[in-house]
Amino acid sequence: MQRWNIAITGFGTVGRAVAELLWQRRSQYAERYGADVRLTAVCTSRAGLYASEGLAGPYAPARQDLQAGLTGIEFIESTNASVVIDAGPTDFVTGGPAYQYMRSALAHDRHAIAISKGALIFDLKGLRVLAGQHNVALKFSGATAASLPTLDLLEHNLAGCRVLKVEGILTATTNFVLNRMMQGHDLADCVAEAQRLGMAEPDPRFDMEGWDTTCKIMLLANAALGADLTFDDIEREGIDNITRGDIESWKAAGVVPKLVGEIVVSERGVTAGVRLRTYAQDHPFAHIDAKMKAIRVETDAMGEVVAICKAGPLATAASALKDFEHILMQR
Amino acid sequence: MQRWNIAITGFGTVGRAVAELLWQRRSQYAERYGADVRLTAVCTSRAGLYASEGLAGPYAPARQDLQAGLTGIEFIESTNASVVIDAGPTDFVTGGPAYQYMRSALAHDRHAIAISKGALIFDLKGLRVLAGQHNVALKFSGATAASLPTLDLLEHNLAGCRVLKVEGILTATTNFVLNRMMQGHDLADCVAEAQRLGMAEPDPRFDMEGWDTTCKIMLLANAALGADLTFDDIEREGIDNITRGDIESWKAAGVVPKLVGEIVVSERGVTAGVRLRTYAQDHPFAHIDAKMKAIRVETDAMGEVVAICKAGPLATAASALKDFEHILMQR
Repeated sequence: MQRWNIAITGFGTVGRAVAELLWQRRSQYAERYGADVRLTAVCTSRAGLYASEGLAGPYAPARQDLQAGLTGIEFIESTNASVVIDAGPTDFVTGGPAYQYMRSALAHDRHAIAISKGALIFDLKGLRVLAGQHNVALKFSGATAASLPTLDLLEHNLAGCRVLKVEGILTATTNFVLNRMMQGHDLADCVAEAQRLGMAEPDPRFDMEGWDTTCKIMLLANAALGADLTFDDIEREGIDNITRGDIESWKAAGVVPKLVGEIVVSERGVTAGVRLRTYAQDHPFAHIDAKMKAIRVETDAMGEVVAICKAGPLATAASALKDFEHILMQR
Repeated sequence: MQRWNIAITGFGTVGRAVAELLWQRRSQYAERYGADVRLTAVCTSRAGLYASEGLAGPYAPARQDLQAGLTGIEFIESTNASVVIDAGPTDFVTGGPAYQYMRSALAHDRHAIAISKGALIFDLKGLRVLAGQHNVALKFSGATAASLPTLDLLEHNLAGCRVLKVEGILTATTNFVLNRMMQGHDLADCVAEAQRLGMAEPDPRFDMEGWDTTCKIMLLANAALGADLTFDDIEREGIDNITRGDIESWKAAGVVPKLVGEIVVSERGVTAGVRLRTYAQDHPFAHIDAKMKAIRVETDAMGEVVAICKAGPLATAASALKDFEHILMQR
C-alpha cells in the first residue's frame, strides 16, 4: 500500500471535520485505492501536533492537546506530509498564512488542497504555475462553494461543452438573510441569527457586501474559464442596504430576491459581476431554501444544467476530501 | 500529436450529432490534449462509410451517401478505431447489435462508449470485466440520463461520501406527459405530442410503463453503488393508467406527480424501485419542467445534492463526448 500523509493547517470547525472524516474513511481509501492514509500533522496559528505514524482517531485532537509553537511553514516543512489541506482563515489582501502554507507545500512536491479562498484570490496564477512545475495537484473545491459542484460542473460534468453563462447563489449567508427577510424578519436580526448558526463570519460584511460571492465567481472564471479577472473587473452589489420597502415590493410582485454571481462568456471575453436579482416563481432559483446554494450553467451543446446543495461545515470538509479522492484516482 | 480514430455504430439523430460535434471540436482536442481526433467510420444496420484518414465535416454524411454492406462487427473490426461509440437502438432482451459492437470493441483494445442502454442492461458485468482485461474504458453517460450528471455525481462530484438515497426524474417522456396532463390535456394526446417532438419512441410503452426509468436506475445502482440488481428486483410502476380523476385529485391537493426511480442504500444492501410519487410545492422536483430531468442524491457527509438539466438529442450526443473527453484526460 502506498502511504499518504496528510497535514491540516488551520484547525477550526472545518479542519477538525476533515480530520474526523479522514479517520472514518481510512479503510475505504485502502480498499479503493490501495492507499494507507494517515493524518500526521495539524496546526492552528499558535500550536500543533505531529505524529510520524499518524494521529489516532476517531476524534480530532482537542485544542488544549495541541503543543504550543508547532505551527508555521517550518513546522509543516519538517513533517512528512504528501498532501497539505489548508482550512485556515481567509485573508485576500496578503494571502495570509494560507498562501505561505500552499506555496511551501507545492514547492516541496506536496499536493495542496485549499478550503479558504484567501491564498487563491491573492495569487491563483502563481500557485498554479508552482503546482505545474512540481507536478502536483492544486485543488480548491472547498473555496468554490464547497459541496455545490461548481468546478466539477465546469471542468468535468460539462467537459467539451462551451460554457456561455454561469449564474450562482454561492454564499449561504446572503441567501439565508434574504429568505428570512422575505418571511418578515429584520435585516439585523437575520444577520445575528446567521452568526449564531455559525454561517456568517464574526464580521459579516464579507458576505453581506457581496465579497464572498465575488471571490467565488472570480475563482470560477479564472480557474475554469480561462479568465484573468481581478476585483476591479467585477461589479459588486451586496444586500447590506436592503430595506423593508424593497422586501414589500418584491412580495407584491411575487418575485424572490437572490444575490447572484454571474459570468458571461462571449466572443469579447469573460465578464463577471455580483448583483441582486429577482426571480419569478417558475425559475429554479426562486425555490432555493435558506441554507442552500445553487449554480446554473448554460452551455452550447448541453443546454442548461442546475445544481443545488445544502451548505455546512461537514459538507465543506467533505468537499476537500473529494478533492483528495480525485488526487488518489489520478495517481 | 496522438491520433484518436472514432467509429460510430448506429447513425440516427444522436449518432449524427456526435459526428458533427467531433468535427466542431477537433481543434479543441488538439489544443487541450494534443489529440488528433478523426471520425473514421460510421454505420447503420445496413450501410456505412470508412475513411482511414477521417471523414470530412462539418456535416455528418447523409444517409444516401453510406455504402451498403459496410456494417456489422467485421466492418468495425477492420477499421482503425481507437474508440467505438454506439448510438444504435436499445434491445435489452438480447443486447442487440450494440452488445456485439461493444464486446468486439473492448476485445480489440478499443475504448467503448454506449449511448443506448440495451447492451449494458443485458450484460454490464461482462462488459466491465472485458474492459478491465483489456485496460480500456467503458463509459455510458448517454445511457444514464445523458446530460444530467448521474454517474458523474455518484462517482466524481460526491467522491468519498456514502450515498444513502438516489431519487430521479430520469425519463423526459413521462415527465413531459405528466406535466401536460396536469395542464388539462388527455393522456393519448400528450403521448402523441411527445412522439411528434421526437421525445418518445415509436412504441411509447418503454417509457410510459416505466421501463426506461427502470433501466437507468438499475444501471446507476449496479455501476456506481456496487449492486447487482435485475429487473426482478425492481418494483416498477408506469404512468400508462393515469386517469383524469387522478389528475384532478393531485391538483386539488396542490401536489405535482412525477415518475421517479429510487435507490436506497442501507446496511441490508441496495434496493431500487420505480414509482409514481407526488411532491409538495416546496420540493425542488415539483418545479421540474416538461422537457427536463432531475436527480437528487442524499449522502452522509455532503447532505443532499440536486441536479437538473434539459434533455435533447444534441445534449445526449454531448454527454457521450464528455465520456470521450474523460478518456482523453486520463490517458
